[in-house]
Amino acid sequence: MVGSEIEQLIKMLSRLPGLGPRSSRRVALSLLDKRETLLKPLISALSTAEKAVVACGKCGNLDATDPCGLCTSDKRDRSKLCVVEDVASLWALERARVFSGQYHVLGGVLSPLDGMGPDDLAISDLLLRAADTKVCEVILALSATVDGQTTAHYLTDKLVDSGVAITKLAHGVPIGGELDYLDDGTLGAAIYARRPV
Amino acid sequence: MVGSEIEQLIKMLSRLPGLGPRSSRRVALSLLDKRETLLKPLISALSTAEKAVVACGKCGNLDATDPCGLCTSDKRDRSKLCVVEDVASLWALERARVFSGQYHVLGGVLSPLDGMGPDDLAISDLLLRAADTKVCEVILALSATVDGQTTAHYLTDKLVDSGVAITKLAHGVPIGGELDYLDDGTLGAAIYARRPV
Repeated sequence: MVGSEIEQLIKMLSRLPGLGPRSSRRVALSLLDKRETLLKPLISALSTAEKAVVACGKCGNLDATDPCGLCTSDKRDRSKLCVVEDVASLWALERARVFSGQYHVLGGVLSPLDGMGPDDLAISDLLLRAADTKVCEVILALSATVDGQTTAHYLTDKLVDSGVAITKLAHGVPIGGELDYLDDGTLGAAIYARRPV
Repeated sequence: MVGSEIEQLIKMLSRLPGLGPRSSRRVALSLLDKRETLLKPLISALSTAEKAVVACGKCGNLDATDPCGLCTSDKRDRSKLCVVEDVASLWALERARVFSGQYHVLGGVLSPLDGMGPDDLAISDLLLRAADTKVCEVILALSATVDGQTTAHYLTDKLVDSGVAITKLAHGVPIGGELDYLDDGTLGAAIYARRPV
């Protein structure tokens, strides 16, 4: 017989991605056990984020300012525009520290089955940004899935008249990957795109 | 370049049991993406639980009232007292609907290595409750670990003079368990405690 307040908390926690009923109960007990060190700071972090964090009107990144820190930074190369599916992809590229240009978050990929059409994505904004004379290259950093690649083709069609260079991420053997464990599609892409040593 | 508000939120989420840096980022993005349906209700559920939920002064259960709903319920058998390690164990027994008596939460088990001695557990309260003439049986529902069984022995020593029946959970083959996958200790316990068909 769990009190309704605890039940409600467990129910809300189990709606978070990756948390099931069992892990939600564990998290709820841990929170109630450590109120001062865990529960109160979490409430405060959630409330602060809820109030402060907004989507950047220019690129779609999440930050406390609009335009976001990446869009306003002087250190970012304004000639390169990297198109990503979502903020998670943007964060992944930023963590890898492999790109120093500007981003454009589409907000998803084209997916007829899920009812995601061109009008549901930030495509018109992308075309406006790509038309800026400062932009020389648009990098399509989309997932190597059917929907991701369909979206990349669609964007290429739309961007081809703007005169910017259009590139996409290379496919091949992941660093640290053993050939024996790789799928045929990746191996095929790696053979196809082989390079002189 | 993640904003400090988001970074702080991810840091707090990653302190929860079972959440690492990657899953915390996923949860944070999901929360910020679904503010009205996920983030705000979660803040409200956490705040309500933080204010309302207290530990029962009698049994140690967590509930919005003190004494808790189980201690005050008329439907619970007051002659049986089930000793559990923590609230998670109490919830597990309640979910199984296999016990209709009262509980007593120890708040841990004896563990010299972790510095948990008899004074760190609710043992004196247990002895007081067991001395109540209404209580006929104390069930030691502790984990089948070394520390759990040490604690059961210790409690048996302390309770033996009070005249109540002292019982503990049966050991044996779990329901649905295949013998081939069981450890030797469990198989031994099951053979030792074999029963006539």
